[in-house]
Amino acid sequence: MHQSERDKETLIKNLRKIEGQIRGVQKMIEDDRYCIDILVQLAAIKSASHKIGLKLLESHTRGCVTTAIRDGGGDDHIAELMDVMRVFTK
Amino acid sequence: MHQSERDKETLIKNLRKIEGQIRGVQKMIEDDRYCIDILVQLAAIKSASHKIGLKLLESHTRGCVTTAIRDGGGDDHIAELMDVMRVFTK
Amino acid sequence: MHQSERDKETLIKNLRKIEGQIRGVQKMIEDDRYCIDILVQLAAIKSASHKIGLKLLESHTRGCVTTAIRDGGGDDHIAELMDVMRVFTK
Amino acid sequence: MHQSERDKETLIKNLRKIEGQIRGVQKMIEDDRYCIDILVQLAAIKSASHKIGLKLLESHTRGCVTTAIRDGGGDDHIAELMDVMRVFTK
Repeated sequence: MHQSERDKETLIKNLRKIEGQIRGVQKMIEDDRYCIDILVQLAAIKSASHKIGLKLLESHTRGCVTTAIRDGGGDDHIAELMDVMRVFTK
Repeated sequence: MHQSERDKETLIKNLRKIEGQIRGVQKMIEDDRYCIDILVQLAAIKSASHKIGLKLLESHTRGCVTTAIRDGGGDDHIAELMDVMRVFTK
Repeated sequence: MHQSERDKETLIKNLRKIEGQIRGVQKMIEDDRYCIDILVQLAAIKSASHKIGLKLLESHTRGCVTTAIRDGGGDDHIAELMDVMRVFTK
Repeated sequence: MHQSERDKETLIKNLRKIEGQIRGVQKMIEDDRYCIDILVQLAAIKSASHKIGLKLLESHTRGCVTTAIRDGGGDDHIAELMDVMRVFTK
């Protein structure tokens, strides 16, 4: 079960934005910008990565997990979902 | 108070690594890779951004904050440090 | 869909343990114990609360969400699951 | 360097509130309340514990760490502060 083309475009657009933010932070460090301002940018990057992860979790649950459950199974998929949530929310 | 040249190099090296990971995630989405694998990558990106933030917090505290306290002040710097920690640990 | 009696007992046992830890922190503050030691205890409380939440999320997904999907629906349950994950992982 | 009596009272009051929330969650589980409602409560407990931790971090930085820096040292205190932040923000 894959992302729809539209979802994929949105995800990639958001990832490109994060890529730009990461490059922005590199420049801030090169330019000796004030630490606090850099930290605020890093917090924004973490938060944006988290939001993308939640989006993926949602489409994965709606897709793979739902299909597996409808096919009479799903136990393994739910176990896997919980494992990744443990890693992702650490 | 700035980062030392050596610290700056390490920070930028680590940020370039994250930039590469972000591009890797874009490619994984384009290639319809399995969501769980993408989520593990996103968790790694969040964790790496967090570590860079902690490094910056440390050098900022050792630098700016310490200097301000030694100069007989520091109250504003500590307030600002706590504000950024609130944002950063959200 | 409810927790099994056994799961409920485990959850309540773990919550009682956290309750004891919270009282321990109160005593540490009354006794002017070293801040760092108190913070380590608070980190343990946060981590234990998080683990209980993940356990509940898992049994909820295996229970309510799976049942709803098997009954041909589940969309609302998945939306609700994602909403609570947004709150829970903030 | 200890908390002021007033700060201690506020901290203990907030911890008692969390203790009450933990007992509330136990009752919700005994009463088979809806998982999502319990998870919202657990998220509130985590968030309240986090806020208490930030308060303690702030008074510790204003107290112990500032005193140590004014006395011409502080390196060990900053290292310890960063260690606890690593644990606390995990």
